[in-house]
Amino acid sequence: MFFASDNTSAAHPKVMEALMLANDGYTPAYGADPFTDILTERVRELFNAPDALVYPMTSGTATNAALLAAMSPPWGVIYCHETAHIEVDERGAATFYAGGAKLRALPSLDSRLNAQTLSQAIAKDRAGHDIHAMPPAAVSLTNLTEYGEAYTPAHIETLVDCARLPLHMDGARFANAIASTGATPWEMTREMTTLSLGGTKNGAMTAELAILFDPDLKDAFESHRMRGGHNVSKARFISAQMLAWLEDDLWLDLATHANAMATRLADGLEERGAEMDYTVDGNMVFARLPLSLHRQAWSKGAVYHPWDAIDGVAPDTPVMARLVTSWSTSADDVDSLLEALE
Amino acid sequence: MFFASDNTSAAHPKVMEALMLANDGYTPAYGADPFTDILTERVRELFNAPDALVYPMTSGTATNAALLAAMSPPWGVIYCHETAHIEVDERGAATFYAGGAKLRALPSLDSRLNAQTLSQAIAKDRAGHDIHAMPPAAVSLTNLTEYGEAYTPAHIETLVDCARLPLHMDGARFANAIASTGATPWEMTREMTTLSLGGTKNGAMTAELAILFDPDLKDAFESHRMRGGHNVSKARFISAQMLAWLEDDLWLDLATHANAMATRLADGLEERGAEMDYTVDGNMVFARLPLSLHRQAWSKGAVYHPWDAIDGVAPDTPVMARLVTSWSTSADDVDSLLEALE
Amino acid sequence: MFFASDNTSAAHPKVMEALMLANDGYTPAYGADPFTDILTERVRELFNAPDALVYPMTSGTATNAALLAAMSPPWGVIYCHETAHIEVDERGAATFYAGGAKLRALPSLDSRLNAQTLSQAIAKDRAGHDIHAMPPAAVSLTNLTEYGEAYTPAHIETLVDCARLPLHMDGARFANAIASTGATPWEMTREMTTLSLGGTKNGAMTAELAILFDPDLKDAFESHRMRGGHNVSKARFISAQMLAWLEDDLWLDLATHANAMATRLADGLEERGAEMDYTVDGNMVFARLPLSLHRQAWSKGAVYHPWDAIDGVAPDTPVMARLVTSWSTSADDVDSLLEALE
Amino acid sequence: MFFASDNTSAAHPKVMEALMLANDGYTPAYGADPFTDILTERVRELFNAPDALVYPMTSGTATNAALLAAMSPPWGVIYCHETAHIEVDERGAATFYAGGAKLRALPSLDSRLNAQTLSQAIAKDRAGHDIHAMPPAAVSLTNLTEYGEAYTPAHIETLVDCARLPLHMDGARFANAIASTGATPWEMTREMTTLSLGGTKNGAMTAELAILFDPDLKDAFESHRMRGGHNVSKARFISAQMLAWLEDDLWLDLATHANAMATRLADGLEERGAEMDYTVDGNMVFARLPLSLHRQAWSKGAVYHPWDAIDGVAPDTPVMARLVTSWSTSADDVDSLLEALE
Repeated sequence: MFFASDNTSAAHPKVMEALMLANDGYTPAYGADPFTDILTERVRELFNAPDALVYPMTSGTATNAALLAAMSPPWGVIYCHETAHIEVDERGAATFYAGGAKLRALPSLDSRLNAQTLSQAIAKDRAGHDIHAMPPAAVSLTNLTEYGEAYTPAHIETLVDCARLPLHMDGARFANAIASTGATPWEMTREMTTLSLGGTKNGAMTAELAILFDPDLKDAFESHRMRGGHNVSKARFISAQMLAWLEDDLWLDLATHANAMATRLADGLEERGAEMDYTVDGNMVFARLPLSLHRQAWSKGAVYHPWDAIDGVAPDTPVMARLVTSWSTSADDVDSLLEALE
Repeated sequence: MFFASDNTSAAHPKVMEALMLANDGYTPAYGADPFTDILTERVRELFNAPDALVYPMTSGTATNAALLAAMSPPWGVIYCHETAHIEVDERGAATFYAGGAKLRALPSLDSRLNAQTLSQAIAKDRAGHDIHAMPPAAVSLTNLTEYGEAYTPAHIETLVDCARLPLHMDGARFANAIASTGATPWEMTREMTTLSLGGTKNGAMTAELAILFDPDLKDAFESHRMRGGHNVSKARFISAQMLAWLEDDLWLDLATHANAMATRLADGLEERGAEMDYTVDGNMVFARLPLSLHRQAWSKGAVYHPWDAIDGVAPDTPVMARLVTSWSTSADDVDSLLEALE
Repeated sequence: MFFASDNTSAAHPKVMEALMLANDGYTPAYGADPFTDILTERVRELFNAPDALVYPMTSGTATNAALLAAMSPPWGVIYCHETAHIEVDERGAATFYAGGAKLRALPSLDSRLNAQTLSQAIAKDRAGHDIHAMPPAAVSLTNLTEYGEAYTPAHIETLVDCARLPLHMDGARFANAIASTGATPWEMTREMTTLSLGGTKNGAMTAELAILFDPDLKDAFESHRMRGGHNVSKARFISAQMLAWLEDDLWLDLATHANAMATRLADGLEERGAEMDYTVDGNMVFARLPLSLHRQAWSKGAVYHPWDAIDGVAPDTPVMARLVTSWSTSADDVDSLLEALE
Repeated sequence: MFFASDNTSAAHPKVMEALMLANDGYTPAYGADPFTDILTERVRELFNAPDALVYPMTSGTATNAALLAAMSPPWGVIYCHETAHIEVDERGAATFYAGGAKLRALPSLDSRLNAQTLSQAIAKDRAGHDIHAMPPAAVSLTNLTEYGEAYTPAHIETLVDCARLPLHMDGARFANAIASTGATPWEMTREMTTLSLGGTKNGAMTAELAILFDPDLKDAFESHRMRGGHNVSKARFISAQMLAWLEDDLWLDLATHANAMATRLADGLEERGAEMDYTVDGNMVFARLPLSLHRQAWSKGAVYHPWDAIDGVAPDTPVMARLVTSWSTSADDVDSLLEALE
């Protein structure tokens, strides 16, 4: 009953197998190895992006930060949702890498950027007092969002129309978004300038990709990556993971499974009276149940995080919990949790 | 005949085996896993440092940079040798993390910091024009140095006496230094405030440790690490590597072997007339041989880097080459290379 | 009819006279001159702060930024109103000086920080996901606000109670706030850790003061000031201005006059049907009148800025204008403007 | 007998008179005033640079830092002499503004950059290990140097040939260099990308100019200037100083006088047995005399700084002193000092 986060799960056996196979003899360091070469070709095909540049990374936070730093001057504004990982969970990494750029965190009724809110925020910054103001530089959207909702290509289209700015996608759970929406990687990213493609939360051991659809960002991105300490020396071990992850659509199979487990969980919770504030599009469920019920589940060994403060809260208060499934969640796990919550 | 770098070699089988064993079920993320707990205890014992804080890392560059940033204000001076990795090979990472701190790169007759030169440099900065000048903040020394020489505890003692500043050791090849000098880890680091302990170049897949002997640096270090994107989520996979690496002195056995291979290589090269500018204390050999001889070896498949410019150089010019051995270098590899250089 | 800004006005004759008198012979540079010494004593008395440190500055933006950088780590959150100068008009200076700190810009119904909103924002950040989140560091409030409203000591008290964080006051128009509220400088700042005290907008030529009520910030502040290029060499010329400005309460007389002119203007505008969104506490009036009326006044030579977009706006649309008075605004100026708006 | 620094002297009466005249009525802020417009035209003519952009500044340190930040990426190398003000006296301002750029401080036998040393340093950086190394970005030279020596256009030509990088000139004492060499401003700067033109040390109250000979740097420079807090609001008061300073070649007359006083002083000192390590090209004299003689002069009221440590030094040790003349130094001042040193 481990639903604390998808980064608490193990790596998929095929990923580990690929690591073992890659662990053979000598290869050039810093991405000049054949694994990274092949991976680059594979990613270009998948995204229908023959000029894309592809970099193996060990951290989603750094992938986001170095990409955004390549997209914004130190005095630029980067728009994101107020729940975005870059805003909430990275201790200011994007601002640090970008030398001072501002994250403009925007609210909405759900966890996706709202086109009108975005449009107004950009317009307000554009109307700023010339050199005194910080000019709009880029938009970052998270797909899946941090609350488990997916952007469809149609959603994205509305943002593109109003923003007219370079777009970055934080795809720490990109696989879940693709599995959820049925869009192709190309459809989901054709308006993007850059993509953080996450493997770690979906079956990889530790592997992310930074993808530059605009190759003009090469020098700036590589410089930010290097001085952030993210130019991995034994890059073959990251690339090998991602090759296995992409092979035969393993990444999508794993995400499809994780999503299905989340749906099964959400259905069960709703039967138990849980209120959901967010649509369960992917592998995350945010459910409000009385605190007493949560305590009961925790006492039975369920592992997941309350997303509200619970100190001094009355037992019958509905408390939101975050429950995350992964490629390794089984139907039995879900059912046991549901039982523990009865 | 792969002598390009120790980071082109594979990981040791025992490290890979440990990864496989660690890949089982769920563990808390971000270092709250049992592997990291046990590793911390193990490191504290090894260094006789019961209060030390230990952090699994994926990058030596970032380990150096985040440690130094915790040791210097944005306006501080960090002293290092002019050949140090932080000076030459990290695109300014330490300055970036530290918010502007200056690296004061010092020359010497070998590749180690010279006590007198260091002492004078610090004195000069201390005599600076008060708030206009940048005050001394820390000293970073690299052991093994980037040219394969080792500091003994006695060397370090002389630096401590003159510096009276917090000391950082870049131990990307710490194991080789320990194997070379016979000093214990404690003897080698008892004057250090922090240590970057490298595994990647000596048998790990991708694993380094940041060690804080001064626990007061905790908040600053963790903050720099986090916003650099180096708070590894699936930390168990780094810690598991380092546990296997430390177990039964595997790390020392591997380094001892690599060092022996370098000695074998150096001896053979000297027989062939090579000039050595640096003592071969560890696993790196810098040898001057005529360019024609290098070209001959390269044509026979030897892989290593010239460390001098070779464009337009006459065939009989002595050209310095860097040759690096590793845990996986065999005596046959060495002998084949020597043959190719005959 | 010059109401564009208080920084478009000249300096007061007594300030210029003091400059002339100070321009005599040699004095030590960088604030070691007798003018700065006497000024420090004068400021300490005025604020009843015997340990305060006082620095002559040439820029309000830099004063804010260097003070806040001394109060926040690079990963801290600084709370301010969404209309604050540091948020809107300094191109990210505070984030730049502080090495990445986040400005958390908060809305309210007026232009002052709302205690409840502030309290909730701080609580939310404190509840953040430990090292992933940016911790609360400081609060900055602007008095007068950028929309001409004053905080009284009572207002400030409510913020202190909820924030429990070091406080900075941006007092670019501090004199107007004191003149408006009748509070003493001590009453207005006794809860402050630092103050940016502005002279430039109220009769000085170019002169601001950075005041540290907490002398422990000395080293950090002086370092940020120095590397920002704000350690003025001929400091006597700034200090001499401020001495003249403070002498015989000239600063308060000038602010009282400017405030009175604004009240006279506001009264006249209200008679003409203007709507006011903000209380006119000081020397700034924000008035909505039909665009046609503004155009009429501009055509008659009135100089002031529309604060709304006016491109493509219908003539009868109420458009907000910002009108700023200063020490040099005369009653005739005000009356002429009112006439032009009839 | 005030020879401590040229920034301890007063402003020239004509500068103060101009300030008084400028203090009349209202002008737009932030450089949109007629004084700045006229100044820009005047500077363009003087430097034969019709496209140059000209910015009034209050700080030489900030002028240097913001210009260099516009000329280098955060990972660039800026070459300068090891005695340069940006290296020694600005607490890392250029690195701070440029977001991490490295100052590569080069030695030479005098205080000017040596072409061969510069050439080798650039070549070494260019040969660096690709993305790991910091690439050459710009060269900054100081004219007069911090030790009072002048670059002639011929000196500069040799640097240009070897550097092939954008050049910045720190002209805090540009007037003295022009007066010394007889070169025209155009001859001295035609290879420059940017110039910091100092008035403060040569008769202005507080006034410097940032000059961009390459107008493409506009956005970057203005952004760095703004967020450094150097977009002066009442810019007319800086521009008015510089207009008076340039009028009828006042700036050159003042510098010529200061230089002559230094020569008179140097001649006298040499008669008294002083050793000079640097050529006296401008208004600074560095003279070695026995400590006892210095102490005698100080006891008679002479004010100047020892440039060597003097604690615990024997009375007959030759100690280097820095003696700076200015526009306001009289021949009597010089002669009195020489007497005091007999």
